[in-house]
Amino acid sequence: MSVRLAGRAAQSTSPAGGAGVLLGIDFGGTKMAVGVADGEGRLLARERVPTYAERGAPQALDRALALAAKLVGEVGAPVAAAGIASPGVVRSDGIDLAPNVPGWDGLRLADAVRDRLTVPAVAVDNDLNAAALAELRLGALRDADPGLVVGIGTGVAAAVTVRGSVLAGHHGAAGEIGYAVTGGPWPGTMLELDFSGRALDGLADSLGVSGGARGLAAAAERPGPARDALAARVDELARHLITCCLLLDPQRVVLVGGVAGNALIRGLLGERMAAVLPYPPEVVLSRFADDAALLGAVILAGEAVPTSR
Amino acid sequence: MSVRLAGRAAQSTSPAGGAGVLLGIDFGGTKMAVGVADGEGRLLARERVPTYAERGAPQALDRALALAAKLVGEVGAPVAAAGIASPGVVRSDGIDLAPNVPGWDGLRLADAVRDRLTVPAVAVDNDLNAAALAELRLGALRDADPGLVVGIGTGVAAAVTVRGSVLAGHHGAAGEIGYAVTGGPWPGTMLELDFSGRALDGLADSLGVSGGARGLAAAAERPGPARDALAARVDELARHLITCCLLLDPQRVVLVGGVAGNALIRGLLGERMAAVLPYPPEVVLSRFADDAALLGAVILAGEAVPTSR
Repeated sequence: MSVRLAGRAAQSTSPAGGAGVLLGIDFGGTKMAVGVADGEGRLLARERVPTYAERGAPQALDRALALAAKLVGEVGAPVAAAGIASPGVVRSDGIDLAPNVPGWDGLRLADAVRDRLTVPAVAVDNDLNAAALAELRLGALRDADPGLVVGIGTGVAAAVTVRGSVLAGHHGAAGEIGYAVTGGPWPGTMLELDFSGRALDGLADSLGVSGGARGLAAAAERPGPARDALAARVDELARHLITCCLLLDPQRVVLVGGVAGNALIRGLLGERMAAVLPYPPEVVLSRFADDAALLGAVILAGEAVPTSR
Repeated sequence: MSVRLAGRAAQSTSPAGGAGVLLGIDFGGTKMAVGVADGEGRLLARERVPTYAERGAPQALDRALALAAKLVGEVGAPVAAAGIASPGVVRSDGIDLAPNVPGWDGLRLADAVRDRLTVPAVAVDNDLNAAALAELRLGALRDADPGLVVGIGTGVAAAVTVRGSVLAGHHGAAGEIGYAVTGGPWPGTMLELDFSGRALDGLADSLGVSGGARGLAAAAERPGPARDALAARVDELARHLITCCLLLDPQRVVLVGGVAGNALIRGLLGERMAAVLPYPPEVVLSRFADDAALLGAVILAGEAVPTSR
């Protein structure tokens, strides 16, 4: 769900051109990214910092806003509008389903950005929806319909594009496949606890493999227990992505997020999907590396700019 | 995928009003329904006959066309357009993914209806998509978005409605969740072989319960092996429907088809979905009983009527 808070129109012109710059903030469970773009959405400045999720939401928000103020100051132009990408289901008075950062549910992100950075208009959307918006406007989904974006990073989530826009869902919760239930005796395990960066970190630990999810993927390059354990987890994710593809019949699936960047995992996943699906979609890696949600946040900002008359 | 074959406009007026009547045909794996409606889509005549799928596709098509000719003759008006609902993925030169009726893949349904019944315009779509169109225009999805229709009858399939229309998918194959893979060692079983009218008939046989799926559901009213076996199958279907609901966040889920009509199965399914989903959608039974796809076929016909100038 995209929440827009329109305010007074930006008045001054700026060296960046137009009525001011666009601010994008992507809050992730592991990292946060802030970008300042010109009125056309071209990034002028960008920086990424750790979330330190275990220290709670307020400190993460404070540091992100301080970084935003710093970058805006460096660019030296007023902010016409801001776009925010957040995990979970964005409501006007808080955020649901964002368990990876304690305290995130109580944040009023749009209010905080508007008031503390003096931004006239702020739009907030789910991070995967923002990534899908970037793919739709600038990336791999420009010429594909329907489209499916699958994020495998700190958590697991998805977003759906249909006929040129991102599907919000009835409660703004479309794409929250991390809550899917895996096989075995009912109800099984929540998918995100079985396959995500954190889940694979835990699996690596349990196998005595150092280096977390990355170390596990490296160890799994060779046949052996790490490979078998990882493949079994991929099976479960593949099962759910297959159901998603059967439901939507997407033309293209775009993978984003740190875990999706691993070629072995991507290869195993693609093999399983191709083996089962009657019409396998193209499966591609986002061309934006870790920036898809940040670029989506900038696009949200551009769409939130108040029109002055 | 809806295939439209426009032709010459219907010329004559009829006792049913307007430029002729609308013909709808719903080909199912177990039963076929034919309906003749006035220009507003109100059914004037309707009849249902068995498919006898095991005897192959041509005899089923022949009998359906004969029944259609009979009903049209009884109504005594020319046919302005016909709509056909068929299992599988409808292409202009045949049908994919319709394994329940041998030989169905080679049929050119639109050509057969147009030529043998002298119908100027024929539209064909997947049967669940037709059912979803009926729910969208006349039924439970009129005021719900997004919508999910789940058909559990001879086979298992679904259809998605978004912003007032039925999602076709890139290959016209959206909703074919019967090809989903169930839990257990990869790749598991195809969902439709695990949970459908035929699958439950087989399960009943294996448990020594007479009366097929219906007998199994009756035996499962009491705790015992039939209940346990049915519940385990429901678990697997629920897992996939949960993933579908997480992906779409539908406002309402409409169940259609013979197996969905069973209150015990519907109840078990609803319980599982409500227990897991963060935002459980309403789950309702289609108000059209077995007629949703037939009504959808009539709507397809209404939309295919050539406009004369």
